[in-house]
Amino acid sequence: MRVIGIDPGLRRTGWGVVDVEGARLIHVANGVCLSEGETLAERLRSLHDALTRVLAAWRPETAAVEQTFVNKDAAGTLKLGQARGIALLVPALFGLPVAEYAPNAVKKVVVGVGHAEKHQVEHMVRLQLPLATIAGPDAADALAIALCHAHHARFAGRLGAAIARAEGRA
Amino acid sequence: MRVIGIDPGLRRTGWGVVDVEGARLIHVANGVCLSEGETLAERLRSLHDALTRVLAAWRPETAAVEQTFVNKDAAGTLKLGQARGIALLVPALFGLPVAEYAPNAVKKVVVGVGHAEKHQVEHMVRLQLPLATIAGPDAADALAIALCHAHHARFAGRLGAAIARAEGRA
Repeated sequence: MRVIGIDPGLRRTGWGVVDVEGARLIHVANGVCLSEGETLAERLRSLHDALTRVLAAWRPETAAVEQTFVNKDAAGTLKLGQARGIALLVPALFGLPVAEYAPNAVKKVVVGVGHAEKHQVEHMVRLQLPLATIAGPDAADALAIALCHAHHARFAGRLGAAIARAEGRA
Repeated sequence: MRVIGIDPGLRRTGWGVVDVEGARLIHVANGVCLSEGETLAERLRSLHDALTRVLAAWRPETAAVEQTFVNKDAAGTLKLGQARGIALLVPALFGLPVAEYAPNAVKKVVVGVGHAEKHQVEHMVRLQLPLATIAGPDAADALAIALCHAHHARFAGRLGAAIARAEGRA
């Protein structure tokens, strides 16, 4: 199963693609989409086009986007929401299921605690994907989201198998 | 010039298309796009697809989206921002310039005061577009945004012509 994690932002959107093969996690690619343009609509189109190229190139089968909550100001939250809308839309346009994870859920899976620091997350991503060259902190966050989604998908798979076994026995 | 006004929302997005022919404003069409789907990504895709159909059918040349600010809660603002991202993206994907107007600017143009009530806006839209059958309050708001944009575009056109005349004289 190929997973893409996306960490949306109005200027920089991180992305990371990971293959899940049984218990193994294999890094495929990661990077950052820069949103450029004079108007907000142009920046959102730039993000849409860049993310579309990433999905067309790496063909993930499932996507996960961080559930961001900004508390600082309404204008900042609205801006982030607009970028997040594009980050959710593009994989949906490719027909992918799109999961959402709260930042604490991502940290809990990747680091083991929900209140981990940003550099701890990046450190653990590097440990779990030692062959990856990571294109900066936004890409590291996106890979963490992909790892979180991979973990949940594997767990759901094991749970499904266990239920099937239990039902077979019953 | 054909103008589309869009009033974005996560469940209901109003739209209204108006032709500007010199001093005349002619109603073309209006309606509401409903966003349906189980997940947020599916709802955003549903909004994207519905707005794409509207733009493909009516072929506006310029677009305007209301600059919404929600102060109630961060989660609500983020949700609205996600829908707004799609409302800005779709006309940009058609190559249209996308203007943004604050709610007060729209009211000031349509009603004459910035603090007008919602029903006043709808009343003035009906007066200015007497032949329109309006598909509810979201569509009325979208037509008001289109009227505001038409007014600004006409003013910019007159200003440009006046500057050209003045420069011709100089």
